[in-house]
Amino acid sequence: MKIAETPKPPYFAVIFTSLLKNNQEGYHEMAELMETLVIKQEGYLGHESARDGLGITISYWKSLENIKDWKANSEHLIAQKLGKEKWYKQFKTRICRVEREYGFSDTLNT
Amino acid sequence: MKIAETPKPPYFAVIFTSLLKNNQEGYHEMAELMETLVIKQEGYLGHESARDGLGITISYWKSLENIKDWKANSEHLIAQKLGKEKWYKQFKTRICRVEREYGFSDTLNT
Repeated sequence: MKIAETPKPPYFAVIFTSLLKNNQEGYHEMAELMETLVIKQEGYLGHESARDGLGITISYWKSLENIKDWKANSEHLIAQKLGKEKWYKQFKTRICRVEREYGFSDTLNT
Repeated sequence: MKIAETPKPPYFAVIFTSLLKNNQEGYHEMAELMETLVIKQEGYLGHESARDGLGITISYWKSLENIKDWKANSEHLIAQKLGKEKWYKQFKTRICRVEREYGFSDTLNT
């Protein structure tokens, strides 16, 4: 997993934080499918994710309209429905406008 | 680790994404110290973090001023300096305004 290479702000971010139930049957296959779909969506700029107990996935977007379209994607709608029924104990979605960014890369040691 | 209980938007988020070098001597102690300090900062609303290879830490704040004050906190400045010198291969910090949030909790199964 890499740090996403995003353009100069402003752009938008969806922070999705989740806790899974014990039964994760089918979850990883669905997560992989969503990953192959999201990168093809219009306005998709990149994503980052990590899980150790708490799962955090952040996707980056050109516009709020692009985020709305991804939320309404028909395969994504099925994933959302199954997520609530089967996999997620709890989740929170936060829609953000990225105002500023800065970074660091230790090029001597990479 | 829990999903942060944040107030009704708007509020602000700092998304900190990082990759560590192999030598993590002192890193976890410093991360714990920063965690005890950040929760006492004025305007702190909560934080979430996960690492599996890629590390993601998101802290939530009342205002941009509160974020600026935490960045300038003297112990935090030392941590930032050591982070660049010793621990981080790469990182990115994104300052965001949270516009909207929604969630789900499967109360029957928790």
